[in-house]
Amino acid sequence: MIVILEKNITEEQIENISSYMKDFGLEVHRMDGKERIVLGAIGIQPNFDIRKMKSVPGVADVIKILDPFKLASRTFKQEDTVIKINRTEIGSTNLALIAGPCSIENDEQIFKLAEVVADSGGTVLRGGAFKPRTSPYSFQGLGEEGLKLIRQAADHFKLNVITEVMQTEQVDLVGKYTDIFQIGARNMQNYPLLKELGKAGKPVMLKRHWSATLEEWLMSAEYLLSHGNKDVILCERGIRSFDNPNRFIFDLSSIPVLKGMTHLPVIADPSHAALYSEHVLPMARAAIAAGAAGVMIEIHDQPEKALSDGPQALTPKVYINLIEDLKKIAEVIGKKF
Amino acid sequence: MIVILEKNITEEQIENISSYMKDFGLEVHRMDGKERIVLGAIGIQPNFDIRKMKSVPGVADVIKILDPFKLASRTFKQEDTVIKINRTEIGSTNLALIAGPCSIENDEQIFKLAEVVADSGGTVLRGGAFKPRTSPYSFQGLGEEGLKLIRQAADHFKLNVITEVMQTEQVDLVGKYTDIFQIGARNMQNYPLLKELGKAGKPVMLKRHWSATLEEWLMSAEYLLSHGNKDVILCERGIRSFDNPNRFIFDLSSIPVLKGMTHLPVIADPSHAALYSEHVLPMARAAIAAGAAGVMIEIHDQPEKALSDGPQALTPKVYINLIEDLKKIAEVIGKKF
Amino acid sequence: MIVILEKNITEEQIENISSYMKDFGLEVHRMDGKERIVLGAIGIQPNFDIRKMKSVPGVADVIKILDPFKLASRTFKQEDTVIKINRTEIGSTNLALIAGPCSIENDEQIFKLAEVVADSGGTVLRGGAFKPRTSPYSFQGLGEEGLKLIRQAADHFKLNVITEVMQTEQVDLVGKYTDIFQIGARNMQNYPLLKELGKAGKPVMLKRHWSATLEEWLMSAEYLLSHGNKDVILCERGIRSFDNPNRFIFDLSSIPVLKGMTHLPVIADPSHAALYSEHVLPMARAAIAAGAAGVMIEIHDQPEKALSDGPQALTPKVYINLIEDLKKIAEVIGKKF
Amino acid sequence: MIVILEKNITEEQIENISSYMKDFGLEVHRMDGKERIVLGAIGIQPNFDIRKMKSVPGVADVIKILDPFKLASRTFKQEDTVIKINRTEIGSTNLALIAGPCSIENDEQIFKLAEVVADSGGTVLRGGAFKPRTSPYSFQGLGEEGLKLIRQAADHFKLNVITEVMQTEQVDLVGKYTDIFQIGARNMQNYPLLKELGKAGKPVMLKRHWSATLEEWLMSAEYLLSHGNKDVILCERGIRSFDNPNRFIFDLSSIPVLKGMTHLPVIADPSHAALYSEHVLPMARAAIAAGAAGVMIEIHDQPEKALSDGPQALTPKVYINLIEDLKKIAEVIGKKF
Repeated sequence: MIVILEKNITEEQIENISSYMKDFGLEVHRMDGKERIVLGAIGIQPNFDIRKMKSVPGVADVIKILDPFKLASRTFKQEDTVIKINRTEIGSTNLALIAGPCSIENDEQIFKLAEVVADSGGTVLRGGAFKPRTSPYSFQGLGEEGLKLIRQAADHFKLNVITEVMQTEQVDLVGKYTDIFQIGARNMQNYPLLKELGKAGKPVMLKRHWSATLEEWLMSAEYLLSHGNKDVILCERGIRSFDNPNRFIFDLSSIPVLKGMTHLPVIADPSHAALYSEHVLPMARAAIAAGAAGVMIEIHDQPEKALSDGPQALTPKVYINLIEDLKKIAEVIGKKF
Repeated sequence: MIVILEKNITEEQIENISSYMKDFGLEVHRMDGKERIVLGAIGIQPNFDIRKMKSVPGVADVIKILDPFKLASRTFKQEDTVIKINRTEIGSTNLALIAGPCSIENDEQIFKLAEVVADSGGTVLRGGAFKPRTSPYSFQGLGEEGLKLIRQAADHFKLNVITEVMQTEQVDLVGKYTDIFQIGARNMQNYPLLKELGKAGKPVMLKRHWSATLEEWLMSAEYLLSHGNKDVILCERGIRSFDNPNRFIFDLSSIPVLKGMTHLPVIADPSHAALYSEHVLPMARAAIAAGAAGVMIEIHDQPEKALSDGPQALTPKVYINLIEDLKKIAEVIGKKF
Repeated sequence: MIVILEKNITEEQIENISSYMKDFGLEVHRMDGKERIVLGAIGIQPNFDIRKMKSVPGVADVIKILDPFKLASRTFKQEDTVIKINRTEIGSTNLALIAGPCSIENDEQIFKLAEVVADSGGTVLRGGAFKPRTSPYSFQGLGEEGLKLIRQAADHFKLNVITEVMQTEQVDLVGKYTDIFQIGARNMQNYPLLKELGKAGKPVMLKRHWSATLEEWLMSAEYLLSHGNKDVILCERGIRSFDNPNRFIFDLSSIPVLKGMTHLPVIADPSHAALYSEHVLPMARAAIAAGAAGVMIEIHDQPEKALSDGPQALTPKVYINLIEDLKKIAEVIGKKF
Repeated sequence: MIVILEKNITEEQIENISSYMKDFGLEVHRMDGKERIVLGAIGIQPNFDIRKMKSVPGVADVIKILDPFKLASRTFKQEDTVIKINRTEIGSTNLALIAGPCSIENDEQIFKLAEVVADSGGTVLRGGAFKPRTSPYSFQGLGEEGLKLIRQAADHFKLNVITEVMQTEQVDLVGKYTDIFQIGARNMQNYPLLKELGKAGKPVMLKRHWSATLEEWLMSAEYLLSHGNKDVILCERGIRSFDNPNRFIFDLSSIPVLKGMTHLPVIADPSHAALYSEHVLPMARAAIAAGAAGVMIEIHDQPEKALSDGPQALTPKVYINLIEDLKKIAEVIGKKF
């Protein structure tokens, strides 16, 4: 913590501020600049509320110098985290290809789409059984019935499963069927859920809330890591802007910035930011070009009849063509699917 | 739903679009303008995904004309909702005064502050026992021990209790002690929790997530209302802006705008947007001047020692003076505490 | 400037970083913490691009400790700036009341409204002759003809004039008629205009761009101040949010925050943020309650026929009632109109 | 315009609303839905302020159905605009490569960098002579001396010139030296400048303000188009988010969305959003993958000594490698440099 003192401060005031800092167990260093005197504090805890110092008379500003996240930081772990699951790995130069429907709807649908995923070289099948919907009147998912279906389809085509869990009470149930837990954007700061999944013994993909800063996102990852789960995957899915509350801005610049902050892999989900299937294509290509560790894409064989988010789903045919492009772009930057 | 057709559309295309709409069970009206032809759909369900129409060839744009929320809307219920609890009412011209510490810390603290609240004319005592903290390393609340303390203090000074509930598994426990459930900003779209509290039989105060549109906020209220709970209180606590992710912008303009959209009362929480106690004062005054149904204010007898958010807590002395101002401002606009 | 070094840095790297800093003419102080070593730089110029340090190997982060604005800062000038114009002052406990139409339309209109302003105790008449309109097809203002009319009306009722200037070439012309130059939100970072008005010899009211940080706003004020104009008034008019690009969020919390950063007065313009006249009322009341140095309000005798922004204009009758409320609220916080 | 009426409206009220609409010269169509009655207006002008209707008693909501921009719209002109300049074209499947320094600093610098641009296959040399700087204490550009230098360098290497113009008074001067006028983000809504450049007879590249909606951006393009200039190029350079006011979010999703709205080409400028040179690389690759009509990239032979924005400039060596990647990615999507 760096404490910047006001311009015309007296020695007595400095003394008071110093001893106030020492009361928190801090060691205080002083640096006299030309315009300002600055006090540096050593031994500060990551959760210290720096506003406490800002209210002390004579203090002009206070700046924290250590990131509040520890286990998630690149400083804590220099090398990239690579998560190994049965049939895939996430975080290496082998890119992850995750695809499937928004919602699991019935066995015909999920088997048909699982086949498409397997054929395209995908290794993880996505599909929601518990759906967080903005409206209470919208389809809320098939529940356990859906979990059974996606597990069967994935096993049949030798795929891994990723599916969303929305509350602590569902963790055991979902854990019986899934290989990777997905935390949706709306639950990024659902701390009881994060704590529970920190102890769940399986990888977790943590979606960024559309208004979360990168620091807040990593603090939520820190909940998972500090409760024992080392296999955390981040997923960028678009942030809210001023332009249109329904058109999310796919924040691809977060990918290179995060590389400097954390060792955790970042998957890109272009489907939710795109809103319409024709926009998914350029955004998926851009995600790979920007360095994502993989993509998660929504597909549907009959988008116009999908029970949720049909307009952003790719048909199998369009999807297959896209994957060909993604493979070529990956090659340009020394990666492969 | 209004479907705007492309400029040079053929009669055949119009026919196709019409019959596509009729397949959804819609009745179609046509209006020929000078520049465009427009189709109006009647009988549309509130959860219909209008993007489905947008992808149809020949469609230029689609606009929904009914709000997706029903029970929360001013159309559904013209008169203001007034929530009556034991010793107070929320939503009438009698403004609600809710105050107390951020976290319940020990019995001395909560009794001392309960007395301050009662003396100032407050009727609801706030205090957190389960705290949603950005950092896993921060104080997480006293849990049930805290609930017992706040209940005792409130009963002793004849106050109602409001306290936060963070997950479905806590609803019964918290319900044993509280008069009003608080849903924190981070849980505004925690749908399992909303459904559970929809059936909990006690009033719920729903804080706005810092990135929620007014429509999304009302959709979350709709979850509560549609699951049976008519006693929903909204609470504005500041939204995120581009300026500084930690300085929330107190969106007071939401208050008059919401008056046109919904019959539910809106309480203002100036403490979280203000960040520093000296900024709480002008923002609390502004909230009353802007027409809030009441305020919720954080107080602490020793802010510098508070276990959470001390810097934004008012001391009892400062708080008492503020309440005097608020009473005078309320009078100017024909209300009273 | 504070330079935070990476965790496992070598002495040789530190030496390199130090000498790099010294090449910029900086004096370097070193502080060894438990987790990190920090270097403090003394003698840094306010316009130094700290990113230069961030790219140096071994540097984890760089933090500036001095505000980039000087003349606008509270550090440079402790006491509040009070601007004295013929018939009014801005920035003291006497609040400024500025009102008038959005656009000057004809002499009957501006005389009628000037009378309303004078009668309500207002001292400054507003009205636009050059209008910055989003659409090239909208009314662009009467130009010099409008300037003549507002000057005549103001003189007749002993009022000051404030009107907008949009480009350097208009400064002389507008200066012939106005007492205060207004810089519109869109021109907040029109640097040639700021430089010219820095030398114009009359007070300038600088509106905040709807996406400007407080720091950027003060940097634009710094352009005016550093080019010789000490009479700078800030005007908060609402910022853009994610909710609705057309509903600006009236950032009243900026008022107390700015009080700590700058000595310049802040006027509030509730009309542009409100969008509809019925929302202007609560926002104007809230602005005074939040501590604004005054308000600027749009009025019109026939809002439905106004050539611009009629829907947000108050009728004289509504306006007069509002001013009565504002006077009472001002009293509560020790101010007066 | 679609006017949605309140639920329990009387026939008399409907009659009043209709005749109010007819007073604006509108033709009114009525559609009776199950829940609401809707009135459609035909013959409305693009600059009609729909708020006027919203205030009429009995009106629940008003929705405009025509875009406020005309000449910029895809409806007005179906085929893509391709701008042909001496040695290049912008908007076709031949991508535009624009590069050069942030500021023109001296003749050695600009000649050296012009050579790099020419060698990499670039056709347009960028460089600022008039610089809009946030701080009045920062380098403001060489002025006309800079214009002369960039013209000489461009001619020597057979390149076109693009450079920024900041005010109407500079248009003639800058026009003597440049092939393309650049309007900076801060001046996107500087209407006098837009009007002047609408008549300037040379192509204009209009950067998006970091808080402009797509509609507002196109409205500014409409100023240029409606004043006679058909050669308008859009340039996406990153928008402001809540995360960090200095890290702009490169809104690549705007590219496919704009393709549906307008016939104008969109160039991507990854340098300003990236902030650091190492982030420019992934963002430039992503821009091409997302379908941009070209890129504009900042380069410098000695970034650490650059007079402005050095940290985001690429060295010639890094730049050359990047261009190789961009060429390969362009091929994947059927384009070429």
